Amino acid sequence: MDLAPRSMKIESENLSLKAIEESELSRLRVAIEDSLVSIVNEPSGAPENLQNAMSHALLAPSKRLRPIMVYLMANPSNSDVKAALRVGSAVEMVHTASLIFDDLPCMDDAKIRRHKPTAHVAFGESTAVLGAIALLTRAFGVISELDSISAEVRTRLSAILSRALSCNGLVAGQELDLNCQIELSDSSAIENMMWLKTGVLFVAAAEMGAVLRNASDDQVSAVRLYAKHFGLAFQTLDDILDHTAKASDVGKDVKTDSYKRTLVHLFGLMQAKRKCQHHLMLADKALLESGAMVEPLRQLTSRLFVNANLP
Amino acid sequence: MDLAPRSMKIESENLSLKAIEESELSRLRVAIEDSLVSIVNEPSGAPENLQNAMSHALLAPSKRLRPIMVYLMANPSNSDVKAALRVGSAVEMVHTASLIFDDLPCMDDAKIRRHKPTAHVAFGESTAVLGAIALLTRAFGVISELDSISAEVRTRLSAILSRALSCNGLVAGQELDLNCQIELSDSSAIENMMWLKTGVLFVAAAEMGAVLRNASDDQVSAVRLYAKHFGLAFQTLDDILDHTAKASDVGKDVKTDSYKRTLVHLFGLMQAKRKCQHHLMLADKALLESGAMVEPLRQLTSRLFVNANLP
Repeated sequence: MDLAPRSMKIESENLSLKAIEESELSRLRVAIEDSLVSIVNEPSGAPENLQNAMSHALLAPSKRLRPIMVYLMANPSNSDVKAALRVGSAVEMVHTASLIFDDLPCMDDAKIRRHKPTAHVAFGESTAVLGAIALLTRAFGVISELDSISAEVRTRLSAILSRALSCNGLVAGQELDLNCQIELSDSSAIENMMWLKTGVLFVAAAEMGAVLRNASDDQVSAVRLYAKHFGLAFQTLDDILDHTAKASDVGKDVKTDSYKRTLVHLFGLMQAKRKCQHHLMLADKALLESGAMVEPLRQLTSRLFVNANLP
Repeated sequence: MDLAPRSMKIESENLSLKAIEESELSRLRVAIEDSLVSIVNEPSGAPENLQNAMSHALLAPSKRLRPIMVYLMANPSNSDVKAALRVGSAVEMVHTASLIFDDLPCMDDAKIRRHKPTAHVAFGESTAVLGAIALLTRAFGVISELDSISAEVRTRLSAILSRALSCNGLVAGQELDLNCQIELSDSSAIENMMWLKTGVLFVAAAEMGAVLRNASDDQVSAVRLYAKHFGLAFQTLDDILDHTAKASDVGKDVKTDSYKRTLVHLFGLMQAKRKCQHHLMLADKALLESGAMVEPLRQLTSRLFVNANLP
């Protein structure tokens, strides 16, 4: 990745469609899509409806942030590119499974996701649940079977991914959000819930990339800190967009969270934006200590937050 | 395990409660319970309701067939006992998660499981789903973190477990059962569906045990064949009991499957029993080639099928 240096805040007029198409980041996204397509199309003899539900959810338009994070943190040599893409794909499969579950009638009861009907709307609830289980468990298989990297690294990746999803990780965040609203009365409790729901998988993705590049313990700590603040900023952005955008802009139901206590709800839009900006600054500081390639990650941040109108 | 030889068909009067309590098999079951309790009680800081849902489902009364299978196929030395119990526990966690999912309103809509209210009845649907995801993903973490066995073996175990659950494994079986009834018109299609729903995880459990004991490829093949026929016999038994028993006997809703095409539905009770017996014979034949300890596995079979009144 030989991206020209850019300032952290890119003016949107500089991002012409052509430039985006041709950038390294966009080529990376294409490579990730190819990896996901190849995984989901591996011959399996699965029932057709189940297979279609998995493809529907996994291949819907997405920013592919987590696999991009894995890849940029891994900074793989040519011979390691495929493994980095497969590991990133495993994280994306887990993320997609979590979205299918979150969208279920018994959770957020969402109808639109990634600009398409949610899996349970398109394929029925039982097939959606089964497709999510299949994506989740296949993710661990993809990692386990990666024989181009050592078994030690594979078990470490698997352990990181498992922890991120566990009952004190992503699953805990969703439980707190859905069923423990009474406990979410102050900003630290809400930030904790948000961190669990979103940040924890960003952290896992970034850490998995760092493990792939054989980063030092100090670098892994910096990578985790970077990803934690990046994840918190991203979730705050999500809340901001949920508050201000139309469904057609974000590709999913908006204001479904409006009854809940979010940072926007608690502090108002401007303060949420300030918090978002603050997390981005802390992320950037940690990034410099992480041993990762700084510029492509800064470019990624700039692109994501360009529409947030941060102060 | 130094169990006295027994004939395959044990008369029920020989199985006094005291003998059962004192048998090696019962002691093994206690060790498995202890392992499950220790895993589910590991400090996590999980939301209380979520933690309770996981314990409720995982620690409810159960035969613990799959972890017993792992253990007896592994036949561990003293220093390997804990690892065999942990691997067995991981399989039981996955099995329990699959039961929580199967019992959901959008699937079998069951109210009773393992003599207790199903997880979604006791804790609400969203918490039940989240608890199942947590059990499923933690299972892969338990295997990944088992540093008393080599990383190579851990990745192999993880790959076997992932395949068993995948979209052409257990998940496919449930999809076929729920949403593809029209395709289940002959006995081979029904047996295939049953194999995917139940047999495939028995096969995985047995294979994982064989991998732990470092069995030869031929032995692994025999182990898989044994477990396949054992699993098919067990699922047929389940259908038979569902047809003939009261809920209080089996600890779950009965006749919920009566609208579906099962072997009992297709051939009648006597033919289903004959098929069950046939699978048990084939299982016993493969067992002799498997390199596993024959007697405790025969004893297990005898105990399980004693109430089926096989011909």
